Amino acid sequence: MADPIPDIVIRRLPVYVRTLQALADSGIVSVSSDELAASIGVTAAQIRRDLSYFGRFGKQGKGYDTDFLAGVIARILHLDRSWDVALVGFGNLGRAIAHYRGFVPSLFRIAAIFDRGEHVGERIDGIEILRSDRIVEEVRRQGIRIGIVAVPAAAAQDVTNRLVEGGVRALLNYAPAVLKVPASVTVREIDPVGAMQSMTFYLNDDTAS
Amino acid sequence: MADPIPDIVIRRLPVYVRTLQALADSGIVSVSSDELAASIGVTAAQIRRDLSYFGRFGKQGKGYDTDFLAGVIARILHLDRSWDVALVGFGNLGRAIAHYRGFVPSLFRIAAIFDRGEHVGERIDGIEILRSDRIVEEVRRQGIRIGIVAVPAAAAQDVTNRLVEGGVRALLNYAPAVLKVPASVTVREIDPVGAMQSMTFYLNDDTAS
Repeated sequence: MADPIPDIVIRRLPVYVRTLQALADSGIVSVSSDELAASIGVTAAQIRRDLSYFGRFGKQGKGYDTDFLAGVIARILHLDRSWDVALVGFGNLGRAIAHYRGFVPSLFRIAAIFDRGEHVGERIDGIEILRSDRIVEEVRRQGIRIGIVAVPAAAAQDVTNRLVEGGVRALLNYAPAVLKVPASVTVREIDPVGAMQSMTFYLNDDTAS
Repeated sequence: MADPIPDIVIRRLPVYVRTLQALADSGIVSVSSDELAASIGVTAAQIRRDLSYFGRFGKQGKGYDTDFLAGVIARILHLDRSWDVALVGFGNLGRAIAHYRGFVPSLFRIAAIFDRGEHVGERIDGIEILRSDRIVEEVRRQGIRIGIVAVPAAAAQDVTNRLVEGGVRALLNYAPAVLKVPASVTVREIDPVGAMQSMTFYLNDDTAS
């Protein structure tokens, strides 16, 4: 087994797939690492280093084959299949997520929705909202591996425990809470505060008009 | 003027501040870079490299003073003041953002809300929701520098143009759309699909229970 690939590299790969696919869709068959770098906003050296974990792709003087490389990286990320997702929480945020147009339906399908409140029993695109005490049973029954936590911070660890007990191994966390999970589970935070805190660096009085 | 600090370093700093502040709040006065690295989930070398852009902080054999370093980085990020924020879009997502408990009110205050629909005229925590055609005027009047885009993808570029015209220089984008902005404007994407696509890397049939 080779050295594990750094998670920071894995996190960048979806952007590569998306950019390469957009280039391929617009009829661009081949890009240099400089052009790809400019599209993504990283350096060409970074791209070559990231891709070197997976093999040799660019041809000397010819650049990368956009469609081919998009497909290779998509397969590395296991995006050559569709994934069922469990959504927990159906307040304003959960509803926004359930109706979010950005999820590519062929990739991610919300297959179960849980809530503890008044919305239990409603149907969203054919999915019945179940009580949160049925998470373990339903996630296990459907073999769901991905969960979205969209509950208030105080409830986040509890629903996380249930999702993990049911078999979820990847968690997208919208709650402003740090989730404790076993090492076999990956968590990505949706962190709007961190994003804003890293932008204020660039703001100062000079930017006032 | 020194070399510009890489944006990837700036993006990590909020996590440093948060972790150092949590350590300080729990009475831990000093941490080694190894301990800090373990709390954050990066390497100690990474931390030393990141902090080296801003000066020399750790004392040989004594580690970092948590409270002091949190304060230094917070000031670097311009987090030693509060920032007014304009929220555009008051659908499910916008409502969730307006009520989000994770915003530290002393740091970020939603000072203006815009929508094009039925909610115009409602008041949220004392803020009247205005029509989106008043973005430029109101953002300029209040001197707001940070905007949150929580509208459907098709409307995202238009509201972005208005925010930027009004003086916004930092945008948090929830819409699944790539925003075109002048070089003087920073955009951070809230990208749940990218986050999920980078987790499926770790999922495979071995994870089935």
